[in-house]
Amino acid sequence: MKNSRRSFIRLSASSAALLGLPFKQLISYDRALQEADRLTRDRPSNATHVKNLQLNPIPKVKVGFIGLGNRGQNHVHLVDALYPKAEIVSLCDIQSKKLDEAKKLIENQVIPSPDYSNDASAWRDMLDNEELDLVIISTPWNSHVEMAVHAMENGIHVAVEVPIALTIDDCWKLVDTAEKYRTHCMMLENVCYGREELWLLNMVKHGIFGEITHGEGAYIHDLKSLLFSKSYYYDYWRLRHHQTTDANLYPTHGLGPIAQYMDIGKGDRMQKLVSMSSVSKSLDDYARHVEADHPFRDTSNFAHGDINTTMIQTERGRSIVLKHDVVTPRPYSRINALGGTHGYHEGYPSRLALRDNSNGHRWLDEKALNEMRNKYNHPIWNELKEPITKYGGHGGMDFVQMYRLIDCLNRGVALDMNVYDAVDWSVVVPLSKLSIELGNIPISIPDFRRGQWQEKVDWNIMK
Amino acid sequence: MKNSRRSFIRLSASSAALLGLPFKQLISYDRALQEADRLTRDRPSNATHVKNLQLNPIPKVKVGFIGLGNRGQNHVHLVDALYPKAEIVSLCDIQSKKLDEAKKLIENQVIPSPDYSNDASAWRDMLDNEELDLVIISTPWNSHVEMAVHAMENGIHVAVEVPIALTIDDCWKLVDTAEKYRTHCMMLENVCYGREELWLLNMVKHGIFGEITHGEGAYIHDLKSLLFSKSYYYDYWRLRHHQTTDANLYPTHGLGPIAQYMDIGKGDRMQKLVSMSSVSKSLDDYARHVEADHPFRDTSNFAHGDINTTMIQTERGRSIVLKHDVVTPRPYSRINALGGTHGYHEGYPSRLALRDNSNGHRWLDEKALNEMRNKYNHPIWNELKEPITKYGGHGGMDFVQMYRLIDCLNRGVALDMNVYDAVDWSVVVPLSKLSIELGNIPISIPDFRRGQWQEKVDWNIMK
Repeated sequence: MKNSRRSFIRLSASSAALLGLPFKQLISYDRALQEADRLTRDRPSNATHVKNLQLNPIPKVKVGFIGLGNRGQNHVHLVDALYPKAEIVSLCDIQSKKLDEAKKLIENQVIPSPDYSNDASAWRDMLDNEELDLVIISTPWNSHVEMAVHAMENGIHVAVEVPIALTIDDCWKLVDTAEKYRTHCMMLENVCYGREELWLLNMVKHGIFGEITHGEGAYIHDLKSLLFSKSYYYDYWRLRHHQTTDANLYPTHGLGPIAQYMDIGKGDRMQKLVSMSSVSKSLDDYARHVEADHPFRDTSNFAHGDINTTMIQTERGRSIVLKHDVVTPRPYSRINALGGTHGYHEGYPSRLALRDNSNGHRWLDEKALNEMRNKYNHPIWNELKEPITKYGGHGGMDFVQMYRLIDCLNRGVALDMNVYDAVDWSVVVPLSKLSIELGNIPISIPDFRRGQWQEKVDWNIMK
Repeated sequence: MKNSRRSFIRLSASSAALLGLPFKQLISYDRALQEADRLTRDRPSNATHVKNLQLNPIPKVKVGFIGLGNRGQNHVHLVDALYPKAEIVSLCDIQSKKLDEAKKLIENQVIPSPDYSNDASAWRDMLDNEELDLVIISTPWNSHVEMAVHAMENGIHVAVEVPIALTIDDCWKLVDTAEKYRTHCMMLENVCYGREELWLLNMVKHGIFGEITHGEGAYIHDLKSLLFSKSYYYDYWRLRHHQTTDANLYPTHGLGPIAQYMDIGKGDRMQKLVSMSSVSKSLDDYARHVEADHPFRDTSNFAHGDINTTMIQTERGRSIVLKHDVVTPRPYSRINALGGTHGYHEGYPSRLALRDNSNGHRWLDEKALNEMRNKYNHPIWNELKEPITKYGGHGGMDFVQMYRLIDCLNRGVALDMNVYDAVDWSVVVPLSKLSIELGNIPISIPDFRRGQWQEKVDWNIMK
């Protein structure tokens, strides 16, 4: 309440930009509210929806890659594994050594040429010159939208790493472009293909949880040493976000699966969110102890709070809690919790309680849990058992994701996840930032589907 | 944002009362905001603070009891165990059979008489007629304040079950009364005496967590069968709260220990909260399946959302997340999570990660965890080992609590927890309710200590 009585608020440079205002301007709180309100309003359009976009089958998908770091190389490896369902046509990375590394992973087909590298606009040349069906974009977050939009304008389908966009306007730009050019725009939210996640989705479909009321997801992964690493994130691009931005910077691994359990976009919709961060302490502390010549040595006042919590409410009244913590010394977790009237699941380690078993007061024992795992295992995890074991990728989810992406394109059916899912899950970044900066107020979540979310349909992977 | 554009809001009867407005009135949203603002403002006073109230030693504490249900009987058993440090002088319960049950638990001293029972004001007679040093109040939540205030007006110290109060005005009434009559007013937040919680508090004191950034607590306990039980909660008093009120109804077990880890009231202060509930589904569902003649059979539209999440921010920027869920089929948990720059703990089961051990990427193994448990075990859990084993109570925490309460009175030293702690932790009930009703907006937390929270001092039990 005291916050709403403040007459003025000093916005950070990035939030001022988000609100379309000059750098570090001291603006009235009311004006900031009005701007935030304007930003989150509906944006009507006459374009045709692409929620179930079915195009001609592409028997052998011609794939290009932009960004060949850790994630990009993994995608090259998996597309190569799927040859001849897909073939690798061209590669692009700003560092030529990354192309060399990627080429070493190609075993089943001809190594592509020419190289696109050593130039910040090489990706543009590749998109303009090469005949591609699909481009896979695994670059720093803030370049995703420009690349994806340019690709779609060239009629190329795009599959983009997470999060796909960092601003509300960019989310709309992706939607508008995909609708205009009728191209696929899928965010590579691999966690939606995890064995545990698809098992849960299958149990939800079979009513095991009763009526779903609540979910919780997270990205908890102590990245301090990687953020400060000279080579892992090119030119410290990820650390720079922590320097300038307080938000849930990486919401989609936690949110994607929960959005699927809750039929977000297919019967329900995320209506609003409220976000709060703890004080920022860990990165300042870490920067005091890196080597003396490190460019971030003694950097202080990182903007990003150590632990962010974001609460989301859906139109049907479900609540979702998301956490983001990449600095506290603790084990990895995405939490993956789901509650309903008949049961509750929580991950790390995976545990399940059911009303019909000890009234839910105890977790299922290992035997009963394994029975449930076998009974509701998603069939694709049986079908693909062999290649999953061979090619893996985060325990197999990466292979399943790439298989589904290419296979759906081969068959000319709608992809598992569309542009609306991509922006629904990513828009938590700018909205959480806005909520925090305006004093932890609730912020409306834009309806990127323009009203077309009410029909209850299964996710394609569940059909 | 859309919520702040609503012109009108329909308040529930109880929130209208909280805001001092007529039943179910349709009021302007702005007016509701103004009322909420008024309610949470500072309330100056010239009374002398009681934060470190030291009175004359009471070698044998004369104790009366109001409320002899489950909790009250347990307290009788523990006070009897402490005889002759304390003696039981009088008993009161609205049901005489509860007095009979309580008397059977008294083994070390004369059974008290006369009986105070069978009358809704019997407790008042007891407080007016008996010579008591201390009254222990274990009645339904909404009677706590009236009883505690009347006792303090009679110069009797009070120890009251959780939560001690349900409205902001009642919180202030307790503070004002304790200050005016200079009596102890302690809330029986037994969890603060748990072995795990005191171990964590001791580790915090020794800097094991580095700078504390975040904590998480909960009351997760599937109470559906008890809420609908004919005998467990007299006349279904607890279920009735769920019928009318959407809030975190029971925040203190989760919050109390975290407030202690974070020095709330002793160097930091809770500044604001935001609360969100999921849709209410489970109690409606349960009411459809109770016996046909149950008074709550087929009751629908329970107000209380199944799972409530409340985020709190402190003046020093720490964040606290509280959960309340007494209806989802899942195992008991208070979460008891604490994060800092050097480590992270989470309960259920208790796990600890430390920066200096695998960089925190793995939980300590059982051996290393036990070493930490032994090294930082709170000494009182060693000192009282024998009676804890004999008398127990929630694994021993109840005995430790009662021992400390009586022992501090014997010695004439300040109690472990004072009236400010009691209302700080309880006020989450009305504030979370207000936040939800006004559209999940941030609500200021009143400063019941009137500015006297900045001095860093140890909790008494840590001295």
